[in-house]
Order: sequence, then C-alpha cells, then structure tokens
Amino acid sequence: MADDAPLIAGIELGGTKCICILARGPDAIEDRVEMPTTRPEETLQAIEAVLDRWSGFVGLGIASFGPVSIDRHAADYGHITSTPKPGWAGQDVGERLRRHARVPTGFHTDVVGAALAEARWGAAKGLADIAYATVGTGIGVGLIAGGRPVDGLTHSEFGHIRPVRVPGDEWVGSCPYHGACCEGLAAGPAIRARTGIPGPELGADDPAWDLVAHALGQLLHTLVLTGVPRRIVMGGGVMVGNDHLFPRVRTAMSRSLAGYVALPEVSDAETYVVPPALGGNAGPLGTIVLGAQAVHAQLDAAFMG
Amino acid sequence: MADDAPLIAGIELGGTKCICILARGPDAIEDRVEMPTTRPEETLQAIEAVLDRWSGFVGLGIASFGPVSIDRHAADYGHITSTPKPGWAGQDVGERLRRHARVPTGFHTDVVGAALAEARWGAAKGLADIAYATVGTGIGVGLIAGGRPVDGLTHSEFGHIRPVRVPGDEWVGSCPYHGACCEGLAAGPAIRARTGIPGPELGADDPAWDLVAHALGQLLHTLVLTGVPRRIVMGGGVMVGNDHLFPRVRTAMSRSLAGYVALPEVSDAETYVVPPALGGNAGPLGTIVLGAQAVHAQLDAAFMG
Repeated sequence: MADDAPLIAGIELGGTKCICILARGPDAIEDRVEMPTTRPEETLQAIEAVLDRWSGFVGLGIASFGPVSIDRHAADYGHITSTPKPGWAGQDVGERLRRHARVPTGFHTDVVGAALAEARWGAAKGLADIAYATVGTGIGVGLIAGGRPVDGLTHSEFGHIRPVRVPGDEWVGSCPYHGACCEGLAAGPAIRARTGIPGPELGADDPAWDLVAHALGQLLHTLVLTGVPRRIVMGGGVMVGNDHLFPRVRTAMSRSLAGYVALPEVSDAETYVVPPALGGNAGPLGTIVLGAQAVHAQLDAAFMG
Repeated sequence: MADDAPLIAGIELGGTKCICILARGPDAIEDRVEMPTTRPEETLQAIEAVLDRWSGFVGLGIASFGPVSIDRHAADYGHITSTPKPGWAGQDVGERLRRHARVPTGFHTDVVGAALAEARWGAAKGLADIAYATVGTGIGVGLIAGGRPVDGLTHSEFGHIRPVRVPGDEWVGSCPYHGACCEGLAAGPAIRARTGIPGPELGADDPAWDLVAHALGQLLHTLVLTGVPRRIVMGGGVMVGNDHLFPRVRTAMSRSLAGYVALPEVSDAETYVVPPALGGNAGPLGTIVLGAQAVHAQLDAAFMG
C-alpha cells in the first residue's frame, strides 16, 4: 500500500542533531540522513543540500525544537522564536526550507511531530484523538484531534501548568518562569535539582518519585479535561528509563480525576496511559505526516473549495 | 448576504428553558420559540412540534445542557449522560431529533454553542481560535480551533482543573468530585458556600474575590497553554454581574503566566480577556453554527471526498 503513497520529505530539527528522511511511510523509507545541529547557516545549508539530492517528493514536513511560531497569520511564521541555543533565536527555518523545496510544507514542534506519528503508526495507532507527552529535559505535549494538531495562536505548552501541590511539599521548583509548574517539578532537571541525583540513577523507592508522579498526574488530569485524548502516550527520558513511573502516574491521574469523566477509556488507566511504540523514529516519521497534511490542506484550499 | 445563507434550525436545550430558532444568521431570524424544559418526553415532543411547523431548513443544530455524549463513535452519541435533572439522565436528544428532522444535525454542549456564536458574530468576531468560559452555577469552557469545537473522546471540562492554591487558603472547596477544583473555588455555589453570601450580593471589596480571581486566573493560564485562543471570552452569572472581576482575573492570569507565552495578543490582557457580546443570544445563535457545520461536514464526506 505504501508503494502507492506519494513520497514526502521530512526534517526533524532537534537541539543536538537533525534527521532528514525521504519516505512514503514507516515501511518505505527511501533515504535517511543524520547530521549534528550546529550553527544555523551551516545546518540549514546542509539540509538544503540533502533536499537538492532528493527528487519526486510532493511535500515537506518540518518538526523543530522550539518554541517556534506556527501561526500562519504571524510575520515570524516558521521561525524559532526564543532559545538559549546560540544563533537560533529568531531564526527562520520553515519558510526558508519551504522556499527552497518549492513544495507544500508543514511546520510544527518536534513533540507534535512525534504525536502525529504515534497516532498514525505507533502506540495510539488508529486513534484520531490523542495526546503525546514527553517528559525529559522539559515537558512537552502534542495534542491531536481528528488527526490534526490542536493549535491556534501558538502550540500547546501544557508542561507549564501549575499543579496543586502535595500537602507539605513546599519546594520552590526549577522552572525559571513558574518555579513549581509541572516542568519545574517533574522534568529531568527538576528531579536532579530536588534530589541531587539524576533521574536515571534515582532509586525506584525514593520518595521523590511520588512527588514527580503527583505532578504528572495533574498533567494527565488536565489533558483528560481537554476532552480530546482517547489515549495518552508518555515518552521522554524520565518516563522511558523508569518503568515504575507508569503505574504511579496512572494512579495519580485516577485519584485526581476522582471518578469525573467516567468513560471506560479513561477508567482503564493501563490502556489509557501508555509508553510510546516508535522510540526515536517517532520524530522523523511525524515529519512525513506533517508534510502529507500540508499537501492535503493546500490541495483542498486551491482546488477542492 | 444572510438572504443567500441557507436556513438552519437550532435548539438550545437548557436546564430550565429551551429556545428553538429558525435562522440564516443573527440578522435573519425567521422564528423563535421559547418553552420550559420539563420532563423529557413532554419537552422533546414540544420541540418536534415546532420542527414540524417549520420548513426549508437544511440543517439542525442542538446545544444541550450536559454532560452529553458527543463522541460519534459511541453507542450513546447524542445522549445526556448524567444529570440530577429528573428523567434526563441517559436521555437521547441528538439522535432522536436528527431522525425526526431528517437533515444533517450537529450536537454539542450549550457552552460550545455559545463559543461558536461569540467567535462568529460576537466578542471574538473574525477569530477562528478562541475560548469561551462561562462562570455561573458551574464553570464550562468551549474551545474553538480553526472555527471548529476542539473535542475527541468527549467535550472539554476545564472547569474541573485543580488550581494551585493561594498560600494560607485551605478551604476545602465545594465540588463534590474534586473539592477545591476551579469550579469548587470560583463558581457561584462555591462563592456562596465560602462566604455565606450569594455572588451578586458580595461587595466588590470582599477579600473572597481575590481567591475567586486567583482560581479563574489559573483557568486562564491553562487555556493560554492549550495554545489555541487568540482571545478568551468570559461570561456567566459570576462574571457578568461583577465588572470588577475582569481586571482582577486578567491580573491573576498575567501574574501566573509570568511572561511565558510572550505574544502580544496575550500580553494585552485587556483585549485578550473580554466579556461576551451576544448575551442570551449566544446559545441560540450557536445552534445555527452547529447546524451549518454539520451540513458542511456531511456534504464533504459524501460528495467532496
């Protein structure tokens, strides 16, 4: 079936490396090129050189580290808006590569890319309405409804919700903006800042995990209340390295919801909150979905309206 | 222009009254019938009698009190799922009226109906991405992205997020599920339970308002983090009767976001968080949008795919 699918080019631009793929789907990857993300000009020229070598692709998808501007009405659409990474703040990525490739181009965050791939081919395969949360050096969420990213003014930033605190826990948290927001309580740097021990080395019986699980349970509570997800996929370094966390965050979610949103999908927490299925391939494969959706949307607007 | 618009029938089914309208838009309302919401059979037969009198409408929109099942994949799609209102729990509304009217039918919550109308013709006119929050006997939110309701498994329930507490405030809250969730801290019954005074009679200088504003500020913080709204419209009995609340909730939101999501739309809190423009007409007019969207979607699926 993938033989009939049009060829799509995809770029996953991460903070440390960049993956370019040319594919019709997960079982039909024609090329894959990996390179370090260095200075903007060097990196973007290397990506353009890869695109120049390729032919026959009808769309381009770009999933980028962020924050990024994904508002098509904004003057800075396609730009990385602010980042501590030298030279990249304010850098145009999406529009520059679109002009270079000259095909319809989709542009979104890396986490939305991964979410689209997990919904299409991964742990939430066959479900059009899902959330994908990554808990690593930060916490990001991609919310997908009807197969499309939920966005508008900008992309979601659910990692920065302020969870109600565990009674007695008054640690200030590690988020430079919010202190004890979810990211400031449960992301990797927060765990390290609170305990002095990196997450992967922190024993499963350390009581700090209960505080992490409580904050993540609040995140899940909030995601359920969006009304969207039929399943929530949780990935990232903090989740993937620590299998004991899944039962804990499921319990924290169910306890917090307290029977509200009494739907069988949510009640069966073990099938509702799951690990990812695509691992490191989610990001690159998500770019293929982003590219395909961009072609589809522009065909609709131009010829099917 | 509205003369050319197709005629749509709409039903706003509220907990105490029901409004049926036949319209091409806000300036072309051909009929409007109001009736009390009594027992289900009596009420639905009265609605059917109104629909029987009308002709020429191409779609039907229904905005109902809830919670309701809006998942087209679910066996109970179109039903009111649970309500203390006698006889209505488990009642089929959407499918029954769709079969009766025999035209494409949209079905959603009353708050999503109001949100669609405020986005189309009201306080967020011209904006495709908005949130509408109603703070009254409960707290409901309609989130609209790309002109369509954001949903999936179910409709949103943002009123039940658990806000971080004001230091020193340990009141248990009034929500039967969550105690001190946003609704349990800031809806009308919560204000009355906490102070012993109904919201409309509570003096603007009462310190309880700061606690209400803080909880609503957390709700706005969360809505901004969805990434969707280009504007947030706040209505309902608690907001509309208390003009002093708007500056307070704007301040609470901005303080909580602490500079995160640094977009001009959000920074200008006075134009970002606004009162509704359509008043009691938002609900009925929203049913016209729901009906029109149902016709459009079904035409797309059947003939344009």
